[in-house]
Amino acid sequence: MFERTLKKKRIYKGRIVGLREDTVRLSNKVISRREIVEHPGAVAIVAVTKDKKMVLISQFRKPAERTLLEIPAGLVHKGERAIDGARRELMEEAGYKAGRIREIFRGYSSPGYSTEVIRFYLAGNLEKVEQNCDSDEIIYVREYPIKKCLKMLRAGKIRDNKTAIGILLVNLTPSPSPW
Amino acid sequence: MFERTLKKKRIYKGRIVGLREDTVRLSNKVISRREIVEHPGAVAIVAVTKDKKMVLISQFRKPAERTLLEIPAGLVHKGERAIDGARRELMEEAGYKAGRIREIFRGYSSPGYSTEVIRFYLAGNLEKVEQNCDSDEIIYVREYPIKKCLKMLRAGKIRDNKTAIGILLVNLTPSPSPW
Repeated sequence: MFERTLKKKRIYKGRIVGLREDTVRLSNKVISRREIVEHPGAVAIVAVTKDKKMVLISQFRKPAERTLLEIPAGLVHKGERAIDGARRELMEEAGYKAGRIREIFRGYSSPGYSTEVIRFYLAGNLEKVEQNCDSDEIIYVREYPIKKCLKMLRAGKIRDNKTAIGILLVNLTPSPSPW
Repeated sequence: MFERTLKKKRIYKGRIVGLREDTVRLSNKVISRREIVEHPGAVAIVAVTKDKKMVLISQFRKPAERTLLEIPAGLVHKGERAIDGARRELMEEAGYKAGRIREIFRGYSSPGYSTEVIRFYLAGNLEKVEQNCDSDEIIYVREYPIKKCLKMLRAGKIRDNKTAIGILLVNLTPSPSPW
């Protein structure tokens, strides 16, 4: 299975996303158009405190026009290793330094139209540091027991897919230590 | 928490996605720009056969430039109820008619830049019908035991976030019947 690119038409290059239209030929010879959002890739951090609480953040999301409860996440900077981006985002957004951190999953957020891959990290041995958001981010940190997060997920209080994955993966991990 | 829209700049209106730049004022008075991909919303179907296998599909995804293993999913048509879109996509992409179907979760796929919400449906009492894809879709249907899906997820053979949610939710549901 493969789609050969016949033409790429650049529509937009923004600060975060780009957009192009690809004309492709499928293996059944059909010619089609694909609208593709170009995204640099993201990291998301499943941070668990010593007393088994998950670190969540609450922030207004313009595309959703609402405040969402999410795991900390962000873009990887140019030249930065993804794992270092995860450490940085956890410090900036949630005010925690991770003593231990490891990748537990990676996946496309919406492979029908976006190139975005999110890498998920499990972070532990947390140490409080100062929160340090960008000027255009207003973020409140919340901590909830892992079981409470699962309850909130079932009750529709969590409306973000990466956060659902984070909560479900932590609940899957055999207790007591995920390391 | 709220971001007031000062200006909306339309960049693109495609067949599936749109793109605009919003200029916003945060509650801390900071003015910022948000790049927003407009998406009509999607449905994803966690379909489980009588012998406890999950129905997955394999298809080439241009934004990823690779073939991915995913749960059936698609856009809701204009004027169509989301649950009917889910029934339709399951028939078209996987060749199964759902005797029972219910929503189990909904969430934003990438709320930092996209308006896309995915609604997840659990489908059961499946009846084989003819697969009926669009001409620009080449899709192979695969069925794996639920436990095997979880194994594939842990082994990095699943690289799609909605599919991760589907697998993890099914594994969470108390046996034997999710109804």
